[in-house]
Amino acid sequence: MSDVWLNTLITNTPQEGFELAMTLSRRGVKYTQPNPETLKALRPEYANSADGLTAASHVIAVNFQTVAAANNYWRKG
Amino acid sequence: MSDVWLNTLITNTPQEGFELAMTLSRRGVKYTQPNPETLKALRPEYANSADGLTAASHVIAVNFQTVAAANNYWRKG
Amino acid sequence: MSDVWLNTLITNTPQEGFELAMTLSRRGVKYTQPNPETLKALRPEYANSADGLTAASHVIAVNFQTVAAANNYWRKG
Amino acid sequence: MSDVWLNTLITNTPQEGFELAMTLSRRGVKYTQPNPETLKALRPEYANSADGLTAASHVIAVNFQTVAAANNYWRKG
Amino acid sequence: MSDVWLNTLITNTPQEGFELAMTLSRRGVKYTQPNPETLKALRPEYANSADGLTAASHVIAVNFQTVAAANNYWRKG
Amino acid sequence: MSDVWLNTLITNTPQEGFELAMTLSRRGVKYTQPNPETLKALRPEYANSADGLTAASHVIAVNFQTVAAANNYWRKG
Repeated sequence: MSDVWLNTLITNTPQEGFELAMTLSRRGVKYTQPNPETLKALRPEYANSADGLTAASHVIAVNFQTVAAANNYWRKG
Repeated sequence: MSDVWLNTLITNTPQEGFELAMTLSRRGVKYTQPNPETLKALRPEYANSADGLTAASHVIAVNFQTVAAANNYWRKG
Repeated sequence: MSDVWLNTLITNTPQEGFELAMTLSRRGVKYTQPNPETLKALRPEYANSADGLTAASHVIAVNFQTVAAANNYWRKG
Repeated sequence: MSDVWLNTLITNTPQEGFELAMTLSRRGVKYTQPNPETLKALRPEYANSADGLTAASHVIAVNFQTVAAANNYWRKG
Repeated sequence: MSDVWLNTLITNTPQEGFELAMTLSRRGVKYTQPNPETLKALRPEYANSADGLTAASHVIAVNFQTVAAANNYWRKG
Repeated sequence: MSDVWLNTLITNTPQEGFELAMTLSRRGVKYTQPNPETLKALRPEYANSADGLTAASHVIAVNFQTVAAANNYWRKG
């Protein structure tokens, strides 16, 4: 991908950090399957599946660990 | 999502931290599937499945790592 | 849940820490499915399944990382 | 369990640490399913399954992170 | 493999770090299955599966933790 | 196992570290299923499965976190 989508891991608040973790998780999918049509077609497969949603939440949790550490856990903010 | 739901990772006790980890895990699901009707419909699918419950506990454990680190493991409290 | 079940992550020995990790893993399940009847009914489903037991051991391992870090790995004990 | 099986996370070598990680992984299983007959009966189910073996190796890897950190990665040994 | 493909974990930007995490994830696959024909044949199996894509994103997330830590989270860049 | 196969986690380069992570992952399998015939027979089951390969890459990623931390991420090398 040639577009710039990630300049920093620093965010103002933990919530923005959580949302960045979600972006990272989606980008991991997108790098693996860049075709937007295919991605759109697959969406109901996991968004309507309990296991798929738990797995998605798991990936976000792993990425949130990274973002939270980068921000020193927003301890003074 | 426009609502503010996460202002800090700091909690008074480890138990509150564990409960925050659960909130983070649920939010990861909710960001992926924002429709409350769909979420409600899927609930029995994992809450009545041993594998689904273990997977849910796994995500909570990952988020609890983040929250516990943020709180320096509540060592002096 | 209104009961207090987690006051500290500090334990006297690594074995107690491992047992706390097990407690955390079970609580993750219990928060997700609070009904004790349902939990009891599901028990054979994972306790008699190789995959289920490995998955349970995985969650304990993740929680043990947290508890061990909290205790500085019991290095002087 | 009333027996003492884990007094320390410190080992002399990384290999002993890896073997301790394996012990922790097995104990995670054993705490969940204490019946030795059941455990024995389930053994072929994962030890003869590629997925089961990868999952077992995964749990060992997570526990090895803990043991390796406890030993400061055996850097001066 | 005799080729040199990994000289450093240091990257200029978090995005390059994320792309390195993707490379690490693919190399993990390639070391396990070095046959390029087989790999090509398997590609549709995960790239067209919601579960497969989430699992791929999960591995990238784990490797990104490593790369991000190596770069001190690109805090001053 | 009585053979010595792991003396140190320190490697000269990140690539050697990644290859050590692969060795650790395979040893985790081997400790669980020591029979080389069985292991050989199971190989096609995961090496020709997209899910199996992603799972293998996941375990390598977890072990690479450990090896990379042990080497301070090869920051000055």
